[in-house]
Amino acid sequence: MAEAGERPDEDELIARFLRPLATSEGAAELRDDAAGYAPPPGHELVLTTDAIVAGVHFFPDDPADAIARRALRVNLSDLAAKGAEPAGYLLTLALPPDWTVNWLEAFTNGLRADQQAFGLSLYGGDTVRTHGPVWVSVTAFGLVPDGRRPLRAGARVGDCIYLSGSVGDAALGLLLRQNPDLFKSWGISIDERDHLLDRYLKPQPRVRLASTIAKFASASMDVSDGLLGDLERLCEASDVAAAVEIDNLPLSPAARKALRADFDAQAAVLGGGDDYEILATLPPEHVKDFEESARRARIPVTRIGEIVGGAAGRLRVTSGGRVLNVPARKYQHF
Amino acid sequence: MAEAGERPDEDELIARFLRPLATSEGAAELRDDAAGYAPPPGHELVLTTDAIVAGVHFFPDDPADAIARRALRVNLSDLAAKGAEPAGYLLTLALPPDWTVNWLEAFTNGLRADQQAFGLSLYGGDTVRTHGPVWVSVTAFGLVPDGRRPLRAGARVGDCIYLSGSVGDAALGLLLRQNPDLFKSWGISIDERDHLLDRYLKPQPRVRLASTIAKFASASMDVSDGLLGDLERLCEASDVAAAVEIDNLPLSPAARKALRADFDAQAAVLGGGDDYEILATLPPEHVKDFEESARRARIPVTRIGEIVGGAAGRLRVTSGGRVLNVPARKYQHF
Repeated sequence: MAEAGERPDEDELIARFLRPLATSEGAAELRDDAAGYAPPPGHELVLTTDAIVAGVHFFPDDPADAIARRALRVNLSDLAAKGAEPAGYLLTLALPPDWTVNWLEAFTNGLRADQQAFGLSLYGGDTVRTHGPVWVSVTAFGLVPDGRRPLRAGARVGDCIYLSGSVGDAALGLLLRQNPDLFKSWGISIDERDHLLDRYLKPQPRVRLASTIAKFASASMDVSDGLLGDLERLCEASDVAAAVEIDNLPLSPAARKALRADFDAQAAVLGGGDDYEILATLPPEHVKDFEESARRARIPVTRIGEIVGGAAGRLRVTSGGRVLNVPARKYQHF
Repeated sequence: MAEAGERPDEDELIARFLRPLATSEGAAELRDDAAGYAPPPGHELVLTTDAIVAGVHFFPDDPADAIARRALRVNLSDLAAKGAEPAGYLLTLALPPDWTVNWLEAFTNGLRADQQAFGLSLYGGDTVRTHGPVWVSVTAFGLVPDGRRPLRAGARVGDCIYLSGSVGDAALGLLLRQNPDLFKSWGISIDERDHLLDRYLKPQPRVRLASTIAKFASASMDVSDGLLGDLERLCEASDVAAAVEIDNLPLSPAARKALRADFDAQAAVLGGGDDYEILATLPPEHVKDFEESARRARIPVTRIGEIVGGAAGRLRVTSGGRVLNVPARKYQHF
C-alpha cells in the first residue's frame, strides 16, 4: 500500500470498484440490502465460506490481485470438490486505515479476472475498517445436479483413490518463499522455482473437474491441509481405511528434484497445505469413464491408492510396496 | 477473555462449539468441504453478508453472546427488509491468540439462542487466527416467495412511508455508552437508560415482519445507517423524493425525553445508526391490510410520510408542518 492518492468514501468505493463486479440481475448492482438468487430446477445449491488473513494465510506484501484470487479460489476449490459449478460469491474486505486506491484497484482486477475465468459474479459485499491485518472473507455458492453432491463420507471398500494435478508444489513454494536458499540446495531451475512459488501464490481450483466429480465420485474433498491428513479425514468420515503407494503420487519435475535433494521436502509434499487439488474415490467400474471425462476437461488425474477395510482413518502408506511409517499430519489452524 | 483454561485444537473447537449449531442435514455436521441447500419450489433465495469488527462495530468488552447476536442479527435485518424468512447462515470467526473457552462458549450460546428465536441453522463455518481485533463475518440466506422480494427501487409517487418499531434508541444508547453522564442530563429513568443501552447492544431484527413486507411493500430497506440517510438512499434508488413529518416519528419514551433535554440528541435520532428497523413504502390501497398484517405479527409500524415527486433522493422534512433544514447524514464506513 504505497501511494495514498485520493481516497473515496464508502459509496464511491462500492460504485467504482465493486459494482462493476456485480453483473447478475439478482445483485441489483449492490444497491440493495441483499441479493436474490433463484437456482435452476433440478439443482441443489452448494455453499461454502473461507477467509484469509494477512500474516496467517498470505504474506502481507503479496500482490493485491493474488490476495483477491486466493480468497476466491480457496472457496471455488471447495465447490469443485462437491461437484458444483460456481454461480456467485459474497465478499467482505477489511481494509486498514492506510489503504490505497492502487491496492484496491489491483485487488478488484484480480477478482474480475477470476470471475471471467471461472464463470461467477459478485452478489454482495461489505467493506469494513480494521486496525489489524487485512483480511478477506468469501462465501461462494454453486450448483450441482440434485442428488449428485459427493460427500466425504461416501467412500466404500474397493473404491479407487484419485488425485487431480500434482501434490506438494504449493508447500514447497512456501518453503522457498520462507527460505530462498533452498533453490540452490534443491538444484532446480529458475523456471521450476517460479513454478513452485506460483503454485503457492495462485491456487488453481479444479473447477473444470466439477461435473466429472458430480458424475462419478463416491466421495470427494479438496486437499488444502496436506494430502495424508486430508485423506485421513475422508476415511474417517467414510469409516474406512486406505492404502496409498507414494511412488504413484503425481509430482511436478520440480517437486521430484526437491524430494531427491532434501529429505525434509517429503514432509512438505505429504503433509503440507495449499494444494487445492481434488481427492476423490470411485468404484472400479467408473474408472474408465472418469478418466475419459477428466481428460476431456483437461485436468490430469492420477490413481494413488485404494480404499480398504480397517480402522476408520487408518492409512497404509507404501513406497515400492514397502510400508512406510509416515505420521499423518493434519494441519491445525490454532 | 479472562481465563485461559484448556484450549482445544481446531477440530475439537469445531466439534465442541460449532457442530451442535449445524442441525440441518445439508450442513453434514460441518464435516464436509461445503454444505448443500435446496430451496423449496416457488421461492427465491435472498443472500446477504455483513461483518463486524471489535473497536469499529462493537466494543471489545461487549459480552461474547451479544457480539454473536449482533453479527447474526444485522444480517437477519437485511433479510427481513427483503421479505425473506431466515433459513441458514455461514460464519467466519477470527480469534486472537489469547481466546478462551469461556468466551467461545458464551459466543456460541448467543448463536444458539438466536437460531432458535429466528428459525435458522449454521451451514458452514471457518475459524481463523488473527493478531488484530476479533471480527465476525456472517453470510445469511433466506427465502421469499418468487417475485415478492421488494427492492429499494420500487417506491412510487403517492406511496405511504412506514417505519417499524421506534427510531434513534440505538444511537442514543451508543451516546450513553460513550458518555454515561448523559443519563443525568437527559433526565431519564434507570429503566429507560437500560432500554437505550440494550437497543444498541442487541439489535432486534424485524424477522416477524418479513412476510408482511413481501406481501405489501413496494420498496423496503433496513435502517442501519440513520433514518434520513437511509430514506435518501431508498428515494435515490427509486428516483423519487419524500416528505417526512418528524412529529410523526415513532419514539420511545426514553428517546422523547432525551430529545426534549438535549438538542444534540436530534442528530442522533435522525442520523444515527444501528436502528435495524424496516423502512417500507406501499401504495395507499394496501395500508389497511399492511397494518393489520403487522399487528398480527406483533410489530408496531408507523406511517411517517409519503413519497412525492421531485429530485431523486430529496427529502422534505417538516415539524408540525414547518419545513426544517435537516442535512441528511449518510453513515460512511471509511
